[in-house]
Amino acid sequence: MEELVGLREGSSGDPVTLQELWGPCPRIRQGIRGGLEWLKQKLFRLGEDWYFLMALGMLMALVSYTMDFAVRSVVQAHQWLYREIGDGHLLRYLSWTVYPVALVSFSSGFSQSITPSSGGSGIPEVKTILSGVILEDYLDIKNFGAKVVGLSCTLACGSTVFLGKVGPFVHLSVMMAAYLGRVRTATIGEPENKSKQTEMLAAAAAVGVATVFAAPFSGVLFSIEVMSSHFSVWDYWRGFFAATCGAFMFRLLAVFNSEQETITSLFKTSFRVDVPFDLPEIFFFVVLGGICGIVSCAYLFCQRVFFGFIKNNRFSSKLMTTSKPVYSALAALVLASITYPPGVGRFLASRLSMQQHLDSLFDNHSWVLMTRNSSPPWPEELDPQHLWWEWYHPRFTIFGTLAFFLVMKFWMLILATTIPMPAGYFMPVFVFGAAIGRLFGETVSFVFPEGIVAGGVTNPIMPGGYALAGAAAFSGAVTHTISTALLAFEMTGQIVHALPVLMAVLAANAIAQSCQPSFYDGTIIVKKLPYLPRILGRRIGSHHVRVEHFMNHSITMLAKDMPLEEVVKVVTSTDIAEYPLVESTVKWRSRPSSLGVVDLSKDRRPGACRAAPGQLLESQILVGIVRRPPLVQALQAEPLSWAPGHQCLQDILAGGCPTEPVTLKLSPETSLHEAHNLFELLNLQSLFVTSRGRAVGCVSWVEMKKAISNLTNPPAPQ
Amino acid sequence: MEELVGLREGSSGDPVTLQELWGPCPRIRQGIRGGLEWLKQKLFRLGEDWYFLMALGMLMALVSYTMDFAVRSVVQAHQWLYREIGDGHLLRYLSWTVYPVALVSFSSGFSQSITPSSGGSGIPEVKTILSGVILEDYLDIKNFGAKVVGLSCTLACGSTVFLGKVGPFVHLSVMMAAYLGRVRTATIGEPENKSKQTEMLAAAAAVGVATVFAAPFSGVLFSIEVMSSHFSVWDYWRGFFAATCGAFMFRLLAVFNSEQETITSLFKTSFRVDVPFDLPEIFFFVVLGGICGIVSCAYLFCQRVFFGFIKNNRFSSKLMTTSKPVYSALAALVLASITYPPGVGRFLASRLSMQQHLDSLFDNHSWVLMTRNSSPPWPEELDPQHLWWEWYHPRFTIFGTLAFFLVMKFWMLILATTIPMPAGYFMPVFVFGAAIGRLFGETVSFVFPEGIVAGGVTNPIMPGGYALAGAAAFSGAVTHTISTALLAFEMTGQIVHALPVLMAVLAANAIAQSCQPSFYDGTIIVKKLPYLPRILGRRIGSHHVRVEHFMNHSITMLAKDMPLEEVVKVVTSTDIAEYPLVESTVKWRSRPSSLGVVDLSKDRRPGACRAAPGQLLESQILVGIVRRPPLVQALQAEPLSWAPGHQCLQDILAGGCPTEPVTLKLSPETSLHEAHNLFELLNLQSLFVTSRGRAVGCVSWVEMKKAISNLTNPPAPQ
Repeated sequence: MEELVGLREGSSGDPVTLQELWGPCPRIRQGIRGGLEWLKQKLFRLGEDWYFLMALGMLMALVSYTMDFAVRSVVQAHQWLYREIGDGHLLRYLSWTVYPVALVSFSSGFSQSITPSSGGSGIPEVKTILSGVILEDYLDIKNFGAKVVGLSCTLACGSTVFLGKVGPFVHLSVMMAAYLGRVRTATIGEPENKSKQTEMLAAAAAVGVATVFAAPFSGVLFSIEVMSSHFSVWDYWRGFFAATCGAFMFRLLAVFNSEQETITSLFKTSFRVDVPFDLPEIFFFVVLGGICGIVSCAYLFCQRVFFGFIKNNRFSSKLMTTSKPVYSALAALVLASITYPPGVGRFLASRLSMQQHLDSLFDNHSWVLMTRNSSPPWPEELDPQHLWWEWYHPRFTIFGTLAFFLVMKFWMLILATTIPMPAGYFMPVFVFGAAIGRLFGETVSFVFPEGIVAGGVTNPIMPGGYALAGAAAFSGAVTHTISTALLAFEMTGQIVHALPVLMAVLAANAIAQSCQPSFYDGTIIVKKLPYLPRILGRRIGSHHVRVEHFMNHSITMLAKDMPLEEVVKVVTSTDIAEYPLVESTVKWRSRPSSLGVVDLSKDRRPGACRAAPGQLLESQILVGIVRRPPLVQALQAEPLSWAPGHQCLQDILAGGCPTEPVTLKLSPETSLHEAHNLFELLNLQSLFVTSRGRAVGCVSWVEMKKAISNLTNPPAPQ
Repeated sequence: MEELVGLREGSSGDPVTLQELWGPCPRIRQGIRGGLEWLKQKLFRLGEDWYFLMALGMLMALVSYTMDFAVRSVVQAHQWLYREIGDGHLLRYLSWTVYPVALVSFSSGFSQSITPSSGGSGIPEVKTILSGVILEDYLDIKNFGAKVVGLSCTLACGSTVFLGKVGPFVHLSVMMAAYLGRVRTATIGEPENKSKQTEMLAAAAAVGVATVFAAPFSGVLFSIEVMSSHFSVWDYWRGFFAATCGAFMFRLLAVFNSEQETITSLFKTSFRVDVPFDLPEIFFFVVLGGICGIVSCAYLFCQRVFFGFIKNNRFSSKLMTTSKPVYSALAALVLASITYPPGVGRFLASRLSMQQHLDSLFDNHSWVLMTRNSSPPWPEELDPQHLWWEWYHPRFTIFGTLAFFLVMKFWMLILATTIPMPAGYFMPVFVFGAAIGRLFGETVSFVFPEGIVAGGVTNPIMPGGYALAGAAAFSGAVTHTISTALLAFEMTGQIVHALPVLMAVLAANAIAQSCQPSFYDGTIIVKKLPYLPRILGRRIGSHHVRVEHFMNHSITMLAKDMPLEEVVKVVTSTDIAEYPLVESTVKWRSRPSSLGVVDLSKDRRPGACRAAPGQLLESQILVGIVRRPPLVQALQAEPLSWAPGHQCLQDILAGGCPTEPVTLKLSPETSLHEAHNLFELLNLQSLFVTSRGRAVGCVSWVEMKKAISNLTNPPAPQ
């Protein structure tokens, strides 16, 4: 009977069912359909978002590849123009300089006119956002267009302005993730969830790095090291998935566009594999790391000082506030004039693009040995087969050019970082480090032309390996990261120098981290973004500092029995986002207990506002949090019955103004380390301190900062 | 005048000063001395412990290298014996089997007789310790010797028993770190600090992996993924430093011992670099990852079931409890008999050591193409130049041998993991995965003998690349880690397969993580070690579960006004490590308040035990924690005045029994996710829940586990 009903239903209502019943093996097909349904449910259940991570990776790879493609076309057009314009010096000079000046001023003007927050690298802001601070402007999708266009113009200036794209891509990726998240919330109807959002943004940061360098491993690790002080393995897995999708897509597009035969790394090297370096060379690698660390400290220091100078100098600060494009154009003109190839530029290898800089510096030959007997001519045109000839000048030799490059780029880079336009500062630092390493490597090769181990088979020294180590060590020191070592391997597709490069990076980081804040932290400090400093040194004395020593004792509290006029006074006189709500402000410990009772009994409506006998004595017991906006709304909603003393806060709370529970409280005995850990781990900005249930104070980043700075510079005895 | 005094002092009291004054450039020398002093202070200030991490890395590298060296000698002796013993089958069989049987039973007996906790891999225990549980036995230094000797014997059995050394090395390294930490505390006099200890142990785990594979990057990442759910970047840097020291030392020793010309990777491969794989092969890599994921699920399931069977079966469980060496010997006999080369062993490539297994499987030739026209003879002796010949049998071809190897090793490996002796289970899994990958790769090579892209230059398929991907994917799936991909690159010294290997590992992990607990988590479950499960799926519904829904309401509290006899009753009837201390147990909310007052006023010594009027009403307000040992001591100290009702807890507390502050409390409104995060992040085992200052419950791992399991399997409605 049931079967018949099924059949009838099948034949009339649902023709597919009938068809299925008549087809072969209905059971198997049903089983398969059930299996697919199960798989679908398993893959797309609420809360899963792998498809979302995948979409993010693919989209960002598409953006990255398209941008690269467009930039390459513009650069080729510029090169063609410069080549074809004839031999007149003025025309050549103009064609060399006008291009970047126009692009930079457009980039700066365009991005600034749309949103002022689209300038710079964006990593410091993303770091601040990931630590829990809300900077709505920075995640707005309208930044996206401004940043993409601006960044394309910046990159199209090539090695003249000498800036990269990592930072902005992290920012773009995070913006995209935030936008996709909003779209998702709107379509699926999943409730918003802050921790899920942060997870998403953390994965997006990894995608940003991975889609620029096609390096998923170092993308994930670099973003972790730069962005956070703690990370969860869960986020790390998600980051890997998204970054792999992004990197795969990025390289896949290159293959589809016939640039590559298959998926390979970006800056392929061909170092000798059997004996890439002799054992004693390890020592030189570590020394190189130390040098990179010292130079990075100098760079970070000068950069911060120059930034301060630009901000405080009367002329430049006026220029920066009123006409940013003019400042940008001036800076670009200076940079372009210096890199003009027939002028000083010939000692700066300025005809090479940044990619070619890296390719040539990672060359596996020793230039000093090759130019010992025969010197190559200074080529009129760039020779793609012998990029490294650009680094050679018959009079100054390799050493002169490389040293001159380092000295000039040092301040040119600092100047370039002050231009207010979307630009990344990682790549130039990476190239600069490679040049340091190359110079060092060529020197070693010059001193030991036969290689270091004299007996047996001699292996000549490969300065390219030193360039790799230098690039990783210098960029690692500037950004305070170690994963740059891995990035160097992923970018070059060779991992033969694993240990020496890692040791150089560690040496450089040891020096840089103990002397200077990282590039991004420095920017956060200069830009006065909120941040929570690390507890450095981990001294033993710091373990004795407790919350009661540095908490803010004077907190503004709302009490349930507070008359409304007082509540209004509190709300209008302060601008805190959330108020702690206590049972009663009467402090019966400090005053005689009778006083509290008398005070309240004076109230004209004793039933409503006087606390019950028990509650009265639970004075200052923290019961929840009241947020400002709903409180203001509730206060505005009932302005009629504002006869003084008639109503108290309790009535408003009962009338609909929501209170939120306090899910986590500190004790006065909590140590500074514990509190710092909590703030870092849970991305908190402030916590209330309760003692025996009473609200006695609060701790926010301000108090933490003060306490941490007191650790290193103890306050003068009073 | 002052100078004169200085001179006189110099000439009489301190002759060095005089000498210095007379020497050249006293100022410069003083400056140098000052600089050195500053450097020394900077490097060795209290709290810094880089030298300690370095020592740890170097020591463990020394142990690892020495062990490898000793094991190699023993294995060579065995091979010599087997070769020289003549052609008699019985003698050869005996010489093949007796050796491992003796070694295994000695290893098992020796290590078990010293400490029962030295068996197994040790990683599950280390994971438990790092999550905050104290397992004193496992960190005892006397385990060290037992584990080193036992592990050496295990490794000396070679590929017969087919076990590795990663897990025990992590354990050894952690033991060493704990020991060094104690030594340091004793010598420098620095106070003990629990968070510092955990930092140290986390770095030690990384050292353990790094010194086995000479792979610092993946050592750090693997230990992070296996050990913890959250990680601080600070620990990660320290881990890198220690792991780099360890890996460097380990490879340095190999160079000093003239095994290597310079520092290189362990299992050097020579894959084609220009086009390592064609683009469509990516698809096969992902499929291989899926296969590895499915096989790993089967492996993990069977392993757990067999473990349970061994434990519950009457015969085997009796054998395991009474005479472990006998069980070990029996298992070893079975394994050795099967691998006997003239028997079944010739289809298992059993004459190869595990290192040779890997070397041969990562071979860059396609075996199926090489044996298509000419088949190599089955060699009488192992040919070190053509290791892969061992994998070939004229009748069964490559496919037959590889498939037979996989089927047999599947259950042999499960059997081997039950032997109670120190042994690592990562390496065999890695080799097994490589064999899966090789089989898959040879199949692909067989189907597409010309390579996949037909037009233009054809690139024959390299099954070695698939072996690499298979090894990384299978070991990654079994351990639920992604860093095995990086490990594969670091071990082989080539990173040309970066993206396909990573994609295979991700695919394998996606399947394994959604179906089975990892090998280590499974062991933790089977061994009934305490653990905190992850909140899987991250469903939206789980965000509504709050602490009040699952906390333990019935907590044992001590009140300050509790008579001593009641305190004694509480202490003797429970065995909690720490008791919450409240002001008074009188619940005036539930009882009429007069009752509380009356109860206490009955007290014969009202002055001492009756609370002050204010405190009385603060009933159940949590004021601190009393630990069991000092409380018991204090109770035993004054047994004389135990007249009933005469004394209360307050007197004892005032008399010296210390109370500790509660630094962190939960609220009933805290969500399950928040509480879980806190437990994981801060390595906590239990927290008290307070509402308005009152202790209302507590949450420990037990309640968390129950709540998490209720999320996935909602309890039946009551």
